[in-house]
Amino acid sequence: MTQKAFQDYYDEDVSHCYGCGRLNNHGLRIRSFWDNDQAVCIYYPNPYHSAIPGYVYGGLIASLIDCHSTGTAAAAKYRHEGREIGTKPSLRFLTASINVDFLKPAPIKGPLELRSTVTEIKGRKVVVETQLTVDGLLCAKGKVVAVQVPEHFFNNKDQK
Amino acid sequence: MTQKAFQDYYDEDVSHCYGCGRLNNHGLRIRSFWDNDQAVCIYYPNPYHSAIPGYVYGGLIASLIDCHSTGTAAAAKYRHEGREIGTKPSLRFLTASINVDFLKPAPIKGPLELRSTVTEIKGRKVVVETQLTVDGLLCAKGKVVAVQVPEHFFNNKDQK
Repeated sequence: MTQKAFQDYYDEDVSHCYGCGRLNNHGLRIRSFWDNDQAVCIYYPNPYHSAIPGYVYGGLIASLIDCHSTGTAAAAKYRHEGREIGTKPSLRFLTASINVDFLKPAPIKGPLELRSTVTEIKGRKVVVETQLTVDGLLCAKGKVVAVQVPEHFFNNKDQK
Repeated sequence: MTQKAFQDYYDEDVSHCYGCGRLNNHGLRIRSFWDNDQAVCIYYPNPYHSAIPGYVYGGLIASLIDCHSTGTAAAAKYRHEGREIGTKPSLRFLTASINVDFLKPAPIKGPLELRSTVTEIKGRKVVVETQLTVDGLLCAKGKVVAVQVPEHFFNNKDQK
């Protein structure tokens, strides 16, 4: 896939997150994209990401929702400000809170599809709601309150 | 440590969970113990479990809270029924919902200490509330609603 993901625009020095950092060789390296007004992430779980046999471990589901939501929050804030994603100053978000309701066990044969809607943008806060499906079966719902990382966190070189 | 953890009592065929299965060689293999009425888990994050540099990735924190809580729910239900942990029929729990509030970034130097209290046991439901600290600093709070796995899930051989 040649299309750039939200995470491909993260500054290099903050691209080591286990969930979404493209430079973390041990991590999940999720990739998120716009599909009109929804943000989508497809993830293929590994066999060892199991909970009870045959089903995906809930911690992975929470992790995917978490990182996909912070990426979506940043992309949405760029849109909201009428800016191209990745332009400086960088917009990055951290999770203030996450809630996941596990509705059905998610078959590990995957792929897992996360489809998110931004339900609120206010000041430094962005709320992202997500549905996780496997082959059309709704398995989990998530809600993340993401908060923008203060600008002074980034190196000055990035503030051009 | 020679003391048996909650997870050491899980039946072999349900001990492959990425978070808490002692037989999952890729997983976190968390271990939980009673400390009087609280359940405690100590986890040493790996350097690659980072979020922003120097701090623990939130998905790991959610994963630890998740699996530690389901283990605690089972141990608490055994206690509640006046039974020795690990006796048959097996008591195992799945997560119905998880909520995590991230209060401060958790330094990755660790160790992470999870300390949980069971706040409700009603029918098949157990609610577990957790505080996660690093060197005494409260970094996250979690709440898990755990639901008992139906008995018919286990093999008949385990129902003696």
